[in-house]
Amino acid sequence: MELFNAIAKRHSYRGSFKDIAITKQDLQKIVQAGIDAPSGCNAQTTSFIIVDDEKILDKLNEIVSGKAMNTAKAVIVVLSYPIEAYYDMSFAKEDYSAAVENILLAVTALGYATVWIDGQIRREEKAEKIARLLDVPNNLIVRVVLPIGVPKVKKEQKAKLPFNERAWFNGYKK
Amino acid sequence: MELFNAIAKRHSYRGSFKDIAITKQDLQKIVQAGIDAPSGCNAQTTSFIIVDDEKILDKLNEIVSGKAMNTAKAVIVVLSYPIEAYYDMSFAKEDYSAAVENILLAVTALGYATVWIDGQIRREEKAEKIARLLDVPNNLIVRVVLPIGVPKVKKEQKAKLPFNERAWFNGYKK
Repeated sequence: MELFNAIAKRHSYRGSFKDIAITKQDLQKIVQAGIDAPSGCNAQTTSFIIVDDEKILDKLNEIVSGKAMNTAKAVIVVLSYPIEAYYDMSFAKEDYSAAVENILLAVTALGYATVWIDGQIRREEKAEKIARLLDVPNNLIVRVVLPIGVPKVKKEQKAKLPFNERAWFNGYKK
Repeated sequence: MELFNAIAKRHSYRGSFKDIAITKQDLQKIVQAGIDAPSGCNAQTTSFIIVDDEKILDKLNEIVSGKAMNTAKAVIVVLSYPIEAYYDMSFAKEDYSAAVENILLAVTALGYATVWIDGQIRREEKAEKIARLLDVPNNLIVRVVLPIGVPKVKKEQKAKLPFNERAWFNGYKK
């Protein structure tokens, strides 16, 4: 899919997925897009666990609920390693966010849909429960889960403010 | 440009740019890609100032130096509004990072190059100086500057660790 088309078509999908499997090849292509994202000082602080085993999907769904999680054929769990990369600064959040955005676009381009689940897993120790389920070591943080599948219902990107309320030339609100 | 091609070709460019102007239309298309990025709870916390006025580019270059800043035909300044979007959580960093990634891909697809300058402007009050130059109000943070142009020298994406050192199926390092 052409880049600007993928950017325009990308949207959050919280509904049910069709009962159609996702090939390992597609999952690898999607995650490779995340690997290819930039990271501060090329520190590559983001890593990924791809869950497509039905038993583990069921256990994940006990921790994070919703129609998308309930019916996803695969879930990508995004791990972040919050090191200091430049002076005392960590870019781990920036790194995983750029990686997730690449993954969202890759998911879109291959005809699937997903939703960036993030804030929800920072509550009720959900991230910690996912880490225990997947044997994630203590020095990594489970930051995002991305349930993936073929959407049952067609959705569109949420409306954005118009260009002239988000961007200006040569000065703020000019 | 096809999405996966853009993802693979995207790279940081710190060298000099050719003396070729960038059209307003291209700059708008590039920034629209940033506007179209997702944001936590669709709060749209990221905004953009596109500097293409030579006098203001010269002043920006006095604050942030380097070959790319010195010869850029335009610089996109990324502003972040760090509100709490969900319970007491802010996703402002995630929001601007996803927007910047879309912009990097758009820049690549249109035949330009850029570099994500971030940590550097958090030092020596550079972000604050840029804010004063561009009349950015105090409730917004200048987070990133992106010098854009046609690269003089062909560069490639930095090598990434292989797939099996960044991603695993159904459990950590499995």
